[in-house]
Amino acid sequence: MPDYMKVQIEKINIELKKYIQSLNTPESLRQAMDYSLQAGGKRIRPLLIFSTLSAFNKNPLIGLPVACAVEMIHTYSLIHDDLPAMDDDELRRGKPTNHKVFGEATAILAGDGLLTYSFQVLAEMKGFSANKKVALIRELAKSAGPEGMVAGQVADLEGENQDLNLEQLEYIHKHKTGNLLAFCIKAGAIMADSDHKTLTKLEEYAFHIGLAFQIRDDILDIEGSEEMIGKNIGRDVEKQKSTYPKLLTMKGAKEKLKDHLLKAEQILSILPIEKQYLSYITELIGKRNR
Amino acid sequence: MPDYMKVQIEKINIELKKYIQSLNTPESLRQAMDYSLQAGGKRIRPLLIFSTLSAFNKNPLIGLPVACAVEMIHTYSLIHDDLPAMDDDELRRGKPTNHKVFGEATAILAGDGLLTYSFQVLAEMKGFSANKKVALIRELAKSAGPEGMVAGQVADLEGENQDLNLEQLEYIHKHKTGNLLAFCIKAGAIMADSDHKTLTKLEEYAFHIGLAFQIRDDILDIEGSEEMIGKNIGRDVEKQKSTYPKLLTMKGAKEKLKDHLLKAEQILSILPIEKQYLSYITELIGKRNR
Repeated sequence: MPDYMKVQIEKINIELKKYIQSLNTPESLRQAMDYSLQAGGKRIRPLLIFSTLSAFNKNPLIGLPVACAVEMIHTYSLIHDDLPAMDDDELRRGKPTNHKVFGEATAILAGDGLLTYSFQVLAEMKGFSANKKVALIRELAKSAGPEGMVAGQVADLEGENQDLNLEQLEYIHKHKTGNLLAFCIKAGAIMADSDHKTLTKLEEYAFHIGLAFQIRDDILDIEGSEEMIGKNIGRDVEKQKSTYPKLLTMKGAKEKLKDHLLKAEQILSILPIEKQYLSYITELIGKRNR
Repeated sequence: MPDYMKVQIEKINIELKKYIQSLNTPESLRQAMDYSLQAGGKRIRPLLIFSTLSAFNKNPLIGLPVACAVEMIHTYSLIHDDLPAMDDDELRRGKPTNHKVFGEATAILAGDGLLTYSFQVLAEMKGFSANKKVALIRELAKSAGPEGMVAGQVADLEGENQDLNLEQLEYIHKHKTGNLLAFCIKAGAIMADSDHKTLTKLEEYAFHIGLAFQIRDDILDIEGSEEMIGKNIGRDVEKQKSTYPKLLTMKGAKEKLKDHLLKAEQILSILPIEKQYLSYITELIGKRNR
């Protein structure tokens, strides 16, 4: 990872801490929110926002509040997903899950708190017109809400113990993971005043890296090591979840991954932007081992 | 209840249904969200918004999207509060709670979906400037989030089986219920371009009716009938929750209720607005039996 990205990750970690510190809220809630926010996520979503801004020759750090908001949404979704009533996971990013440390009630509320706070962060950020803020809030709510991430989560739960076809599997991942990744790119483009045509192409790019991200996830659940990815592996098989390797064989899944990465790169290659930043992310998604 | 309020309640019920119908989302999630939204709430929050707009001689129905957003937030909070890990309630508004009908996982997600959608509704509403939308989104997030309702919920959970003093009890209720009621009045005032002085006074008014609302709730948990209020009574005693009657005796609680209602009325009496609408709500809060 290039140094500038390490710096960006450091900045997002500090800024997230500040946002939580500044809250006038019960200490237990603050700690529960902070715990999962600081639990060593890969910060792929913030990096996508920063890289999109860089692609438009903008200072990536103007996207810091939006990056924090997205990371809050992503983190809330992990906290709720890990609950006993949902995926019932005990380990996340190598640490005990939120409800294991703080109890179920506080974990639910920490999730609710992070979700709600993310919109406050967007509404309060400086340096953008009210019109842009409204656009960002709308897009975030759409990609995280009942037409986005929450829909994907429901479809995922309903798909357990069922044999899904590729279309159904893509619906789940497009909604559960893809929409929020796409938001990051869209948000960068909105902040950078992208023209409509470039924005549309970037959305296509986002679709491909979103699916690539998920296919890599499925592969890691089989080939990864617990130590490396920081969560229990083999959980997909255990829960009889439909996955790309299961549907396409491991070889087929790897080809599919390569195919999406290639298409993503092809889209970048025709766009009038500084491609190297997003190219690096594309590569990162294809290679990540956690 | 005057006819115009019945009409307003009818409008909000229809509009909430439309918002849910218009979603492109898995059917189970739609049903779970719709179920709790239509489970016969009192619609006090929407009525507060409408009445505040009327007080400023505005058409109350311009507040319909905000009223829907607030009702989504209120409903999400009830769904999550009722979960086994939280208050573990089986009955709400005379019907089985959301997780009893749809299962815990879907109930958690229905709550997440409603919470997220409420911000989309505000971001997408017509007829208001982006500046006003941002102000409304910010206020809603603040009153519902980790400095508002979620903080109150945490304090409430932590206060179980403890003897709280009046200050601690007021903290819980101000946050758990008061802030969202206050948002309704603030939102009405923002939409109606209220001057700052009137807004500040209305916030004080909101504080008093918020506490009055909660004291009445505590009284109903002892003196109400299950049939009338539609949820199990005696739950506060069962969970050894601190309540106003427990702290102040029933007589003291009733005096406190009367005192807050009187102060609320006194504030209204000095404001340059059409008071009768909010006066009626004040009265309603003092007398409600469900």
